[in-house]
Amino acid sequence: MATTTGLHLYGFWRSMAAYRVRVALNLKGIAVTETALDLNAGDQFAPEYLAVNPEGAVPALVEPGHAPLTQSMAILEFLEERYPDPPLLPVDPYGRARVRSLAALIVSDTHPLMVPRVTAYLAEHAGFDEAAQREWSLHWVVRGLSAMEARLARDTETGVFCHGDQVTFADICLGNLGAVIRMARLDTAPYPTVARIIAACEAMEAFQRANPRLQLGAPA
Amino acid sequence: MATTTGLHLYGFWRSMAAYRVRVALNLKGIAVTETALDLNAGDQFAPEYLAVNPEGAVPALVEPGHAPLTQSMAILEFLEERYPDPPLLPVDPYGRARVRSLAALIVSDTHPLMVPRVTAYLAEHAGFDEAAQREWSLHWVVRGLSAMEARLARDTETGVFCHGDQVTFADICLGNLGAVIRMARLDTAPYPTVARIIAACEAMEAFQRANPRLQLGAPA
Repeated sequence: MATTTGLHLYGFWRSMAAYRVRVALNLKGIAVTETALDLNAGDQFAPEYLAVNPEGAVPALVEPGHAPLTQSMAILEFLEERYPDPPLLPVDPYGRARVRSLAALIVSDTHPLMVPRVTAYLAEHAGFDEAAQREWSLHWVVRGLSAMEARLARDTETGVFCHGDQVTFADICLGNLGAVIRMARLDTAPYPTVARIIAACEAMEAFQRANPRLQLGAPA
Repeated sequence: MATTTGLHLYGFWRSMAAYRVRVALNLKGIAVTETALDLNAGDQFAPEYLAVNPEGAVPALVEPGHAPLTQSMAILEFLEERYPDPPLLPVDPYGRARVRSLAALIVSDTHPLMVPRVTAYLAEHAGFDEAAQREWSLHWVVRGLSAMEARLARDTETGVFCHGDQVTFADICLGNLGAVIRMARLDTAPYPTVARIIAACEAMEAFQRANPRLQLGAPA
């Protein structure tokens, strides 16, 4: 049962960062209203949106009476502190550090290289055609998946999900690489642990409902 | 007075991520021993280091009897939970979210585009010479500084530092852009708030002691 909170989300249907927030909201049973921006049309640079987030990026989460919250992981930490049930971080500080580190491997080391503003720069300043852009993005996805696999396969803490048998921030960040893998027709044989965990995520309703294709503004 | 903890840091003298951990350790008065890796020589891919961090990246922080901690922001969150005094995050969840969001603007949206592995890819696959690599890095630094300035100048929470008058994660992440700005001879006139806060950081001993030039392995 979803809780009414007055929260309002600014998102873009295929934003990986907005996806993380949607999954966390779904897992915690928090209902939000949403404004769908079209990043391809430049909605993020409209003065009304820059007043919400001067960085011109999604997601932003607004609670009436408070300044807008931005940056997916800052929002996830906020949701965890404000709506602790069910928890998406373990209790012990070493476990929490492990989960946050796995999440950062995707959020800081992988995803920022694939965002539209980066591939647009490469198209404009380095003449990257679609194939070169695809190769660039894939290079970083493969690096990220390889590092995730090495860590997950090594660590005894790995369970059904990245950290034991409960969903954490790490799974939320890993989950939407499933779509990337399928789109790029990547062979997952070198990443059996990653592939198993992504499948476990995708079997959950909270992840399914965050599927980019089902979001406001997605093409029919 | 520094506390002896048995903590051991794996760093690289000019890593911006290792710098963040060093500043946090200094602020909290935590003494660590250190191993200096040379990322230019590929030390991060030596089997002994990959056993510490399979991602082949610095920093890593090791506490005897525990798995190595990796990713600068996961390490900062760990230090905050384990050694809460002095706090580097505000108490209220909205303030914490703001600080983490400002930090992420540097850590996730700016810094990952400037790391050696990325410029190396561009040199190899896009023929980026030194000037093109410099232009690339500057493009993202300018974007990051502009967004930080817009947020800091707008928000009433901004004080002597990014969030009020106490140092937080956000200042730690912003602090080492001072060196980048000087190296690139960037005009800081468009970023008065950012420049003022960086100066406030650089006036503190905890930031000064983390100066890359003073670290193990730095060229004489």
